[in-house]
Amino acid sequence: MCEFCGCGVKSVTVERDLREENLSWAFKVRSLFKESGSLSINLISSPGAGKTTLIKKTIELLGKRYKIAVIEGDIETDIDKKAIEKMNTPVFQINTKGACHLTSKQVFSACESLGIGSEPFDIVFIENVGNLVCPSSFYLGEDIRVTLLSTPEGDDKPMKYPEAFFGSHAVVITKMDLLPYVSFNVEKVKKALRKLNPGIKIFPVSSINGHGMEEWIKFIEGRIK
Amino acid sequence: MCEFCGCGVKSVTVERDLREENLSWAFKVRSLFKESGSLSINLISSPGAGKTTLIKKTIELLGKRYKIAVIEGDIETDIDKKAIEKMNTPVFQINTKGACHLTSKQVFSACESLGIGSEPFDIVFIENVGNLVCPSSFYLGEDIRVTLLSTPEGDDKPMKYPEAFFGSHAVVITKMDLLPYVSFNVEKVKKALRKLNPGIKIFPVSSINGHGMEEWIKFIEGRIK
Repeated sequence: MCEFCGCGVKSVTVERDLREENLSWAFKVRSLFKESGSLSINLISSPGAGKTTLIKKTIELLGKRYKIAVIEGDIETDIDKKAIEKMNTPVFQINTKGACHLTSKQVFSACESLGIGSEPFDIVFIENVGNLVCPSSFYLGEDIRVTLLSTPEGDDKPMKYPEAFFGSHAVVITKMDLLPYVSFNVEKVKKALRKLNPGIKIFPVSSINGHGMEEWIKFIEGRIK
Repeated sequence: MCEFCGCGVKSVTVERDLREENLSWAFKVRSLFKESGSLSINLISSPGAGKTTLIKKTIELLGKRYKIAVIEGDIETDIDKKAIEKMNTPVFQINTKGACHLTSKQVFSACESLGIGSEPFDIVFIENVGNLVCPSSFYLGEDIRVTLLSTPEGDDKPMKYPEAFFGSHAVVITKMDLLPYVSFNVEKVKKALRKLNPGIKIFPVSSINGHGMEEWIKFIEGRIK
């Protein structure tokens, strides 16, 4: 069984080599972020949970005070890249062409293209491919891993996809503006997340009406190097 | 690159063997469904798009006239199995323990446990693991593949995850009750889906208020063997 995404490929040696290769590139990425003095944040979620919208809202609130860059991961299209470009923020698009997660080697190339390491970026967002399973097995060299869970997805997701939440420093509960229309118990989710990961930070937010954004922004600002 | 889920494992021979093994089990599953006279439906979507809710609503509307069974695929938990059991419907839970999709071998075992092949089921739902990338590369022996897209996920998903929609016979646009509160253009999605797959059937539905369920039910009934 492939240990990276559990896809079923039975090649232990190749897996180990790939895991070591990914980790080796991840350390190079980490060094680049250190040289650049950047806080790097790997965003993981299901498709459509609001990763790009959260990045846009964060740029809107912090972009005047801090230098921000974005690495966009998608299987196809540069829709998200274009949305970030409109905010006059440096952005690099990675298209994985079928793969269900980013690799640290891809992120290293993106960092080089953006000049991370030579230019001083305060914050670098890495938006992973929309997938709640595969990206959690690939360390990209980030400082902070944040998993998003949108209220319409339902409050059973921390139990059903524990790996994604177990390995994260913070969870952003997105689309809080939809709470009156969906079946989602915030307290139940908080309890399940803290059972998986007692130290996890939890931010219920709405990028639409601004609910909870202050706490999220404080969390980021507190970690800028 | 692993051809199954694109996870990056570089083992061409192992991949080919696994692909052939999966296909060989898929044909066995297909034979079981044929013997049983069952219409089998493989449901694919992001986590929380409403697969279980759609199955429950379909059982509610068709369960008195047809014999239905459900195969539940999840990484962890039997939450969905318990929900189906409450409807007095035969159900078998597969826990993939980390893997991002079901395999035809797992489905074959589930069919045997449910007595498919010996007992005459009219409809068998296979609820795949919540993932818009990996399950689309694994044929499970199903008659119909249906991908769900929920309105809160956004209308760019057919462009961003083309494989999932390209290989499906039908798309169910779920959570139409949330349409007034989210940014989702149904016509844009229909156009994008038909560009990818001209013959695709599209059903905008709400399992909450029943919107569009009549067309979905007609589609299923028209294909019962």
